[in-house]
Order: sequence, then structure tokens, then C-alpha cells
Amino acid sequence: MSRENITREEISKWFQKLQDDITHQLEEADGGGKFVRDTWDRPGGGGGTSAVMSDGAIIEKGGVNFSAVWGEAPPQVLKTLRLEHPDAEEFFATGISIVLHPKNPMVPIIHMNTRYFEVSGGAWWFGGGIDLTPHYIDTEDAAWFHRALKEVCDRHHASYYPDFKKWADEYFFLKHRKETRGVGGIFFDHLSDAPGFDRAARFAFVRDVGLAFAPIYTHFMEKNSVLPFTEEHQQWQAIRRGRYVEFNLVWDRGTRFGLETDGRTESILMSLPPNAQWLYNFTPPAGSAEEQTQQLLRKGIDWLNASSRVSAS
Amino acid sequence: MSRENITREEISKWFQKLQDDITHQLEEADGGGKFVRDTWDRPGGGGGTSAVMSDGAIIEKGGVNFSAVWGEAPPQVLKTLRLEHPDAEEFFATGISIVLHPKNPMVPIIHMNTRYFEVSGGAWWFGGGIDLTPHYIDTEDAAWFHRALKEVCDRHHASYYPDFKKWADEYFFLKHRKETRGVGGIFFDHLSDAPGFDRAARFAFVRDVGLAFAPIYTHFMEKNSVLPFTEEHQQWQAIRRGRYVEFNLVWDRGTRFGLETDGRTESILMSLPPNAQWLYNFTPPAGSAEEQTQQLLRKGIDWLNASSRVSAS
Repeated sequence: MSRENITREEISKWFQKLQDDITHQLEEADGGGKFVRDTWDRPGGGGGTSAVMSDGAIIEKGGVNFSAVWGEAPPQVLKTLRLEHPDAEEFFATGISIVLHPKNPMVPIIHMNTRYFEVSGGAWWFGGGIDLTPHYIDTEDAAWFHRALKEVCDRHHASYYPDFKKWADEYFFLKHRKETRGVGGIFFDHLSDAPGFDRAARFAFVRDVGLAFAPIYTHFMEKNSVLPFTEEHQQWQAIRRGRYVEFNLVWDRGTRFGLETDGRTESILMSLPPNAQWLYNFTPPAGSAEEQTQQLLRKGIDWLNASSRVSAS
Repeated sequence: MSRENITREEISKWFQKLQDDITHQLEEADGGGKFVRDTWDRPGGGGGTSAVMSDGAIIEKGGVNFSAVWGEAPPQVLKTLRLEHPDAEEFFATGISIVLHPKNPMVPIIHMNTRYFEVSGGAWWFGGGIDLTPHYIDTEDAAWFHRALKEVCDRHHASYYPDFKKWADEYFFLKHRKETRGVGGIFFDHLSDAPGFDRAARFAFVRDVGLAFAPIYTHFMEKNSVLPFTEEHQQWQAIRRGRYVEFNLVWDRGTRFGLETDGRTESILMSLPPNAQWLYNFTPPAGSAEEQTQQLLRKGIDWLNASSRVSAS
């Protein structure tokens, strides 16, 4: 696929097909829940389909959203995108966005997003990422996850994994808690034309990120959903879900952008967990598994080799 | 008290005493829970005391925070305060902030805040407000609440209640849900020197707002905490608590200001409920009490006369 041959419609169509593929794979791995679809129109142009699973066998609440929207770009949109081209009057945006909250606290929460933007005047770019938020960090699981992401990145450029891993550490960070959301992953934005990276090459990378998602998460669904858990584990899960709410509503650019620009609220907030708890000044007991997880919620950990270097047990 | 005689220290001391008075009155009305105090210092100057009640007989989780902070004003602070005085290099801010989440879904959530700001160069102002968030709106209760606020306002100026009631409707509004947080109340900001309103007059009004809080809320504690409730009521309470989280993290200026300027996170987020729920696309059944409440979450209702004009039963 050469750059000239890729149209916004092809990208959007590919994302929409990815939504179908992912929902089918997740339904199969869940073995109980089904995704329910809502299709919506955006008054200014375009629309989307939200696919939401509630009360599955493994997934307690999860959404796989597709959208393709276009139209006149309000100044607020251009400002949020950090664009101030005088000729950027029309925009086109398409992508998929996924958050899955599992029932079993031993299964991690996961998030994935791929997106493509165009503005009139010719500017275009891809963005996206995958990050993992275990309620209980298992360093072997974290290493496996990062190896899977590195493999995808390395197929495209040697700088991708280290650069995008670092970017995820910076992005998925709760500044007010001075803690990361989880064990990170990869995050990238504004991937545009550059020597050696035309639109076809960027799109090929984003496709590979999208295709990696289902095999990665179904691995954790299958492996960890059989682990036993207690009410205490569920309470910690509810507290960690509270932190997930804090990140998404306070810091996540996509969520804030959507809420401030009159996006479809129920689709944007499908990322919120089924429940959450806030206890004043909660501190996990010294030496507990919860404290061990808390201590691993920091930037700069080399998760690829974490099992031999960071002890969580 | 003439304007010249009021110092920032006196205002701050008065707010601190108000914190004590209110916590005592709430403990007495609760009959079980006690407030636990944490005192903290702000590295740049000043500090505060958070008083938090957990698992009271009536109050499930609540905080009464006092703070008095000062120092060099970072540009971000001045920008948030919409000040760009070239000489506004030092600031002083003091106030109290209260949020109470009751156990019984028939008792409303309440919020109160009073605050005083000064910046070097001479600018000063008061702000504050009280607003009520019933899980189930009782129009008689809402009318009683608004009459109590009007009585406080009318002692100071005939324009206060209508102006500040309207301001509360605008402020306590979830734009992304197109619904108000509850039945509103009063909200005011930037109350400064004006003909007929010197600092002493503004402070006298703010004191009366502060003094009105405990009698208002203990009235609802006593009257409504004896009402029966079911698990279904508690589920709706958890959903409404989710909306409270959304307002505070997405729209509340005080919360965002605190989180973005490295405030004491646990004090700021004491306003979050003990738990919350998010169900995708939840709509209350037609004709239910929940739907009746949902329909009353809108701006511009004349709550003073609501019981005769808005039917909720």
C-alpha cells in the first residue's frame, strides 16, 4: 500500500472491521457475555458504534468503540489538538477505543486506542497505545505484556518500543497521586510523515498494534480468570477502579476532549468501571500484596526484565 | 466591624472556628461518628486541617476542611483566578469546604464552601456557596432549603438570593449530561468592594452563610435518616454518587485547581463518595421515583414555590 493509495475511508473501514474482529475474539474468550451495539450519529458529521459488554463471565464491564467523525473544526478542537493552522477549517477523525474491566481482581484492566486525524490543509497523523492496569501487579505478567508490545514495535522501528514505552509512562500518570495508572505499555501521538515513515508505514504499524490487542488480552483472560480471590481482593479492586476513574476524568485528554466538545457521553464514559470506592487516606498494610503493587506504580521500570529485578512477592 | 479593622488573620481564624462549630454540631446530630483530624503544612506557606468522618450513624463519609495558604502566586494560579495583575505576586487564600455523603439514600448529599482571597496589590474577594444533591428529590425539602438560603441572603441584599441562586444553577451543572447536580442552592464568587458593599459587609454575609450550614443539614439528617430504604434505593444512590464524582473531577473549579497545583490530594478528594456505580446507558423506568428525580435535574426551577408547581410524586 503506497501512501497515495490510502484514503481516510480505507483507514476508517479498517478500524471498523477491527472492532468486529476484537469483539468476536473477546466474546469467544469470555464464553458468556455478548457485546450490545449502539449506533449514533454526530449532528456535525459522522458517527460511531459503541459495543458494550455487561456482566460477562470474565468481563464485568467493557466497551469497544468505533467512530468516524468529520466537519467544521471548532476553535476549541483545534486548540486541544495544538493546531493553529489558519487553514485548518475541516477535520476528520476516526479510531477505536477499548477499556475492559474484568470481574476477577487477578485479571488486569486493559485499554487500547488507535486513531487517525486529518485537517484540511493536508496535515494528518496517527496516534494510539495499549496500557495494562493490574489490580495486583504480577511482574511475570508485566514482562510478558511488554515483550508482546516490543515485538510489535520492533517489526516497524527499533526506536518505537523504547520511545513509546517512555511516552506511556509519562502519559498514564496520575500527577495528583504521583503514581502510574498501572504497568504502562506504549503510547504514541502525532505520528506523521517523516523520512522513512510515510503514511503507509505509519498505518501498517497502527494496524499491527490493533491486531495485537485481542491475543494479548485473551491470554490474561484465560490465564488469570481461574485464579481464586476474596472479598478483600475485591475491595482493593474497587479502590484501584477509583484511581482509574480519577485518571480518566482528570487527566485523560481523549475523555476531556470528548466531554468538553459535546461528544456522546455514554460512549466516552463506557471506560469507567462498574463500581469504585474511595476511602479517606487509605494506605495498604506494610508487607501486603496491595502495598507491593502500590510500590510498583512508578515510571521508568524496565518491565521487560522486571521479573528478575523487581520483586513483588 | 469596619473594613479597616478586618485582617486576613481574623477572617482565617473565624473560618477555623466555624470548622470546629460545624464538626461539633454534625457529631451531635449523627450520634455515632466522630471527625478525625489531619493537620498538614503547605511547603510554600500555610496549611490546613482536614476533619473527616467515616462510617457514622447517619454520615457514611464526610469532610470539613479548613485551610489558610499563602506565598508566591504561580502564573497558573493567577491564570485560574483570572487575574493578570503584573503586581499580583503574592496570594493569600483561606476557607472551609464541606461535603457530606449520608448512608440513607433519602438524606441528600450537601456541599458548602466559603473562601477569601487576597493578592498583593490590594485585590481581595470572597466566594462560596451551599448546594443540595438529593438522591431522591422531595420538592417540599427543596423548597424548605431554598427558603432557608433566601432568608440568609435577604438579610444582606435583596439581589443576593435571585442572583446567587441563578449562579448556582449555572455552576452546579454537568454539561456532558445536560443535568444539574441536584436542586442547586446559592453560589457566589469575586464578591469584592462595591458601593454599599465594603469588606465588612461582604464578610458579614459570608459568616451568615457559614452559620446557616449546620442548622440546615442537621434538619435533613434528623428528618430523613429515619425513612426506610431498599437495596434498589441504594443502587440509585450509587449511580447518583457516580454523577457527583463526574461533576467534581470534570467540572468543579476548586477540585481541578487543587489537583493541578499540587494541593493535598486526600483533602481535595474527601469530597468523593464512599462508593459509586456506572451502568452503561442506564435509564430509570418510566414513572419511577428515579425518573421523577432525573426530570427535576434542570436549571431555572423556582424551588421556593416548587411544591405547588413541580410534581414529584
